Amino acid sequence: MTLKALFLNCTLKSPGETSNTRAYIKNAEKIFHELGVQTEVLRMSAYNIKYGNSSDEGENDEWPRIVKKIYDADILIIATPIWRGDRSSISKLIAERMDGIWEDTNEDNGQYFTYNKVAGVMVDGNEDGAKKSIANILFDLNEQGFTIPVNAFTYYVGKAGPGKSYIDAKGDKHEFTNNYILIMVHNLVQMAKTLKENPYGTDLNKLKLQAKEMSK
Amino acid sequence: MTLKALFLNCTLKSPGETSNTRAYIKNAEKIFHELGVQTEVLRMSAYNIKYGNSSDEGENDEWPRIVKKIYDADILIIATPIWRGDRSSISKLIAERMDGIWEDTNEDNGQYFTYNKVAGVMVDGNEDGAKKSIANILFDLNEQGFTIPVNAFTYYVGKAGPGKSYIDAKGDKHEFTNNYILIMVHNLVQMAKTLKENPYGTDLNKLKLQAKEMSK
Amino acid sequence: MTLKALFLNCTLKSPGETSNTRAYIKNAEKIFHELGVQTEVLRMSAYNIKYGNSSDEGENDEWPRIVKKIYDADILIIATPIWRGDRSSISKLIAERMDGIWEDTNEDNGQYFTYNKVAGVMVDGNEDGAKKSIANILFDLNEQGFTIPVNAFTYYVGKAGPGKSYIDAKGDKHEFTNNYILIMVHNLVQMAKTLKENPYGTDLNKLKLQAKEMSK
Amino acid sequence: MTLKALFLNCTLKSPGETSNTRAYIKNAEKIFHELGVQTEVLRMSAYNIKYGNSSDEGENDEWPRIVKKIYDADILIIATPIWRGDRSSISKLIAERMDGIWEDTNEDNGQYFTYNKVAGVMVDGNEDGAKKSIANILFDLNEQGFTIPVNAFTYYVGKAGPGKSYIDAKGDKHEFTNNYILIMVHNLVQMAKTLKENPYGTDLNKLKLQAKEMSK
Repeated sequence: MTLKALFLNCTLKSPGETSNTRAYIKNAEKIFHELGVQTEVLRMSAYNIKYGNSSDEGENDEWPRIVKKIYDADILIIATPIWRGDRSSISKLIAERMDGIWEDTNEDNGQYFTYNKVAGVMVDGNEDGAKKSIANILFDLNEQGFTIPVNAFTYYVGKAGPGKSYIDAKGDKHEFTNNYILIMVHNLVQMAKTLKENPYGTDLNKLKLQAKEMSK
Repeated sequence: MTLKALFLNCTLKSPGETSNTRAYIKNAEKIFHELGVQTEVLRMSAYNIKYGNSSDEGENDEWPRIVKKIYDADILIIATPIWRGDRSSISKLIAERMDGIWEDTNEDNGQYFTYNKVAGVMVDGNEDGAKKSIANILFDLNEQGFTIPVNAFTYYVGKAGPGKSYIDAKGDKHEFTNNYILIMVHNLVQMAKTLKENPYGTDLNKLKLQAKEMSK
Repeated sequence: MTLKALFLNCTLKSPGETSNTRAYIKNAEKIFHELGVQTEVLRMSAYNIKYGNSSDEGENDEWPRIVKKIYDADILIIATPIWRGDRSSISKLIAERMDGIWEDTNEDNGQYFTYNKVAGVMVDGNEDGAKKSIANILFDLNEQGFTIPVNAFTYYVGKAGPGKSYIDAKGDKHEFTNNYILIMVHNLVQMAKTLKENPYGTDLNKLKLQAKEMSK
Repeated sequence: MTLKALFLNCTLKSPGETSNTRAYIKNAEKIFHELGVQTEVLRMSAYNIKYGNSSDEGENDEWPRIVKKIYDADILIIATPIWRGDRSSISKLIAERMDGIWEDTNEDNGQYFTYNKVAGVMVDGNEDGAKKSIANILFDLNEQGFTIPVNAFTYYVGKAGPGKSYIDAKGDKHEFTNNYILIMVHNLVQMAKTLKENPYGTDLNKLKLQAKEMSK
């Protein structure tokens, strides 16, 4: 069983431009490779992702290509820079499009296609905003079908005010951040394996009927 | 193996006063009982919980009694009313005191005592603020050692503005909310069982050394 | 002195599609007109607004057209639908681009071109997320140079779960929401007038030097 | 006209203990004094403030003493340390109790007693969480009757992870933070003066009736 980890890089930078978030992801990839996990990184700004809340917003929409990648992944990691103390607008856009998961559920038990996948979050910025970004993203991921193993995040930020970002600040040598990268990756891998062998048995169709009954 | 679920009710109401959050919890308890899980509910306002960030803030501090209960539980549920569009101040206080978990880690692998427990969130209010509260609490729980199974939350809110709370609004008959209670409880129970048999093997002591090495 | 109020409608809906946020704005416009204030509404999704943090992101970027409109306005209102319990991705994108204000400051006193304008927020959704959206937007506006008069926001949301949005829910007849529209508009107008006659005298260039001195 | 600025220090530290937030406030006080404004600092942990949402929660509740101080102040500043990436629990408690303002409104125009006061926010922490805290507090203050002048906040945070707090980190020499202290204080003072001479004329009683009419 070879696990696959997919990173969605939500940098505002165009393809070709240097992305601090990309450099940060590289350090997580190394740990995944040490554990025998395949990785793939997609820069969201390289795709034409339309605004909306479905998995396919029609002509020229490239989100369906990302959805296919999520299908194939065991582990999803949302990686975002901080802008204005919160996740990037692209990161929010991705979250909105992920609502499309509810279009595609298992007929037998109603589970969304994400239901036995795990997810984590990486956030980097020159300053303040990491924990807010993480909280917002974890909530979205959890509602959208992912299991969140313990300590499933890592972040880098500098001091208050304008300052160096991850690469120039040598974030790759910041011990606190590295420690959380390690913990996040190890726990994601373990939980992904555990879920492969112990998938949720929850029958959402049945619980829906039970809810209707309870609410009479 | 009988599982135990512990609810921390973060209502601002004094013991003896009617708590909407307590009524809401009752409906989750029923589902746990159907699944053979024991439940216990503690109203935080009944305890003298001092301000601070350790597990014991000295004289007259009753938080240590709560810590013992968390030790014994397999499943922790933070239940909070909404005030000012966010979790209650007591709920935030609890989160601050939970930082004490880092005082008590396993010598062999550095895991905090919460490391193989699961957690969920219940939020009720007369209006707006549920998702913000949930995001904040999930982040705290995840950093403090808990695994968050899929869809590990449920909430009830009414329309914008002053209005009826859970009991008077007959929140117990709100199908959407009941559906999420059911899903949350089922997933918490399944993941608690899964973790009993598949605890995290992550060695935090070793990863700490590895982080130090990476950061040179 | 005729005041101008500019609304930025951050709906995800394409031009031509029905926008609940647009219907909501209409009710605020009426009150502005009663008070003799001109209004203009721009739907952000109608423009090609590139990702970034400057006022001009180059070829085909249409944000500079919006910036000109903000220059000419006395009152700015960010109006956003709720998606995933938070403001829309377009609303976040706008906030990121607004960081461009720091490129264009008054030589004499260092004030940004927004410094004597006032701002408010309108949020609508079928459910939960209004106060979180408002808090996030107010913070951005305040850092980006706007004064926030008392009660400078209004919102509409329905009960927990899927449900009708503003138009179908007859949000235009929701008294709580209408009351806040009225208060917001009246206070925005009064403060805009007050600032016309009492602009900030704060000399940001001088305070910058004083800060340098304090920090030695 | 001598203006009065009131700081509510929301540190978790007991009276007598060193509070980083208190040290930070001192630097803002100096600027106020330069501008001829009187200052007073109250440490919230020194008072027995009961949980609740009214201005007086009965026996032994000391919040009414704070309310009197707010009455007498022209400028209110909420100063809070960061815990868990958000404002302190005491800061949230204060916000909840401030809801009591709605008990005491002007008969003639329905304005709350805070309606012509201005407010600002100071946040300090060893790491991440300032902007989230500020956004949350600004929202509360704005709903509770305060005008927020431009740039009405200042914050200090260090790099990601455990680290030195304001005093040990020499936050008093951090130029970015000092610059914002200066701007905040200058703008608060100017707007407080402006409002003394140009109070809001908004008649909330009348708007309430108009809202009722609009909603038929």
